[in-house]
Amino acid sequence: MAVVEISVAPLGTATPGVSSYVAACVELVAASGLVYQLTPMGTVIEGDIDEIFALLRKMHEVPFGQGAERVSTLIKIDDRRDQGSHGLQGKIDSVLDKLKSDS
Amino acid sequence: MAVVEISVAPLGTATPGVSSYVAACVELVAASGLVYQLTPMGTVIEGDIDEIFALLRKMHEVPFGQGAERVSTLIKIDDRRDQGSHGLQGKIDSVLDKLKSDS
Amino acid sequence: MAVVEISVAPLGTATPGVSSYVAACVELVAASGLVYQLTPMGTVIEGDIDEIFALLRKMHEVPFGQGAERVSTLIKIDDRRDQGSHGLQGKIDSVLDKLKSDS
Amino acid sequence: MAVVEISVAPLGTATPGVSSYVAACVELVAASGLVYQLTPMGTVIEGDIDEIFALLRKMHEVPFGQGAERVSTLIKIDDRRDQGSHGLQGKIDSVLDKLKSDS
Repeated sequence: MAVVEISVAPLGTATPGVSSYVAACVELVAASGLVYQLTPMGTVIEGDIDEIFALLRKMHEVPFGQGAERVSTLIKIDDRRDQGSHGLQGKIDSVLDKLKSDS
Repeated sequence: MAVVEISVAPLGTATPGVSSYVAACVELVAASGLVYQLTPMGTVIEGDIDEIFALLRKMHEVPFGQGAERVSTLIKIDDRRDQGSHGLQGKIDSVLDKLKSDS
Repeated sequence: MAVVEISVAPLGTATPGVSSYVAACVELVAASGLVYQLTPMGTVIEGDIDEIFALLRKMHEVPFGQGAERVSTLIKIDDRRDQGSHGLQGKIDSVLDKLKSDS
Repeated sequence: MAVVEISVAPLGTATPGVSSYVAACVELVAASGLVYQLTPMGTVIEGDIDEIFALLRKMHEVPFGQGAERVSTLIKIDDRRDQGSHGLQGKIDSVLDKLKSDS
């Protein structure tokens, strides 16, 4: 199971606010049925890597559908196939466990 | 006020797990007094851009102190100085507001 | 035409060097027929966004085929569909032109 | 010696072109005396990690000085302190060597 963060931003829009573009992307993620989390800097998605790639491609297209002429998309993939901690919550729990055992 | 995401990862460790390195980085953030949020893919920090840069520099150094020989650090800065939505929660709220008004 | 940078790195390998993994990825790019440039921090590819997405998916898989258990991939897409400067060289030329006119 | 890639982009400019902002950033790098390479997706800098951090901070500020209200900056650090290949050209040569030995 892979965990992937994506942020999609239009360049050359009239104003600095981009939340309407982000909201349209998040609607796509929600419709996909994949587990996800909205963060202050992007959307983190958990699931099968091929399903996620198909979704990433659609999300990148969203701002063009809203009139943008240039889109900057950043994708970070963490794909772990051993028996280590998996998933959105598993990754955070793994760090929190270490913090507890340190203190 | 800037919002910055950082992830710090050692390369060439014996095993794929890196949560002990991440935990040591998060301890630094917690000690800084800056507002932050742990996400599945990194740590998001909010505050004065110069204070954050000083903290980023220290976080990047952490894995070397734990024996790593090579460190890969990714930093994404969103620095907004107009009157738009600010801060960790403000950015998320701004998207959630758009989602509500769409539905 | 889109311009995309990708870097693919295994985590938890025994040693910090990852050039054998990078080389296998670059071989895939070369075989694709797409225009590309190897940089110190990744591979930059120019072309149709759908062809590039298919290639990115294959590149991300490479280290697993070489025995890696965890792969961290970073993808940055700059997709411009107006009449501005395009392509690998066009983007650099556009900046160099500005530098000349400044001096 | 660290190798660092940075890209700095204003959001909410009237037009999609950002080469004038990039050019002003590159002028700062050139003035720093550090070794650097302009790529289609950013600027790659080689040198002492503390000198580079000071430069990154200045580069991030550039678009604000040109009137931007929001700036998105991406920084990727590869900091290697073992005896492996170093520097801009060393990293590329290391991959090219592997490609030759494969064929």
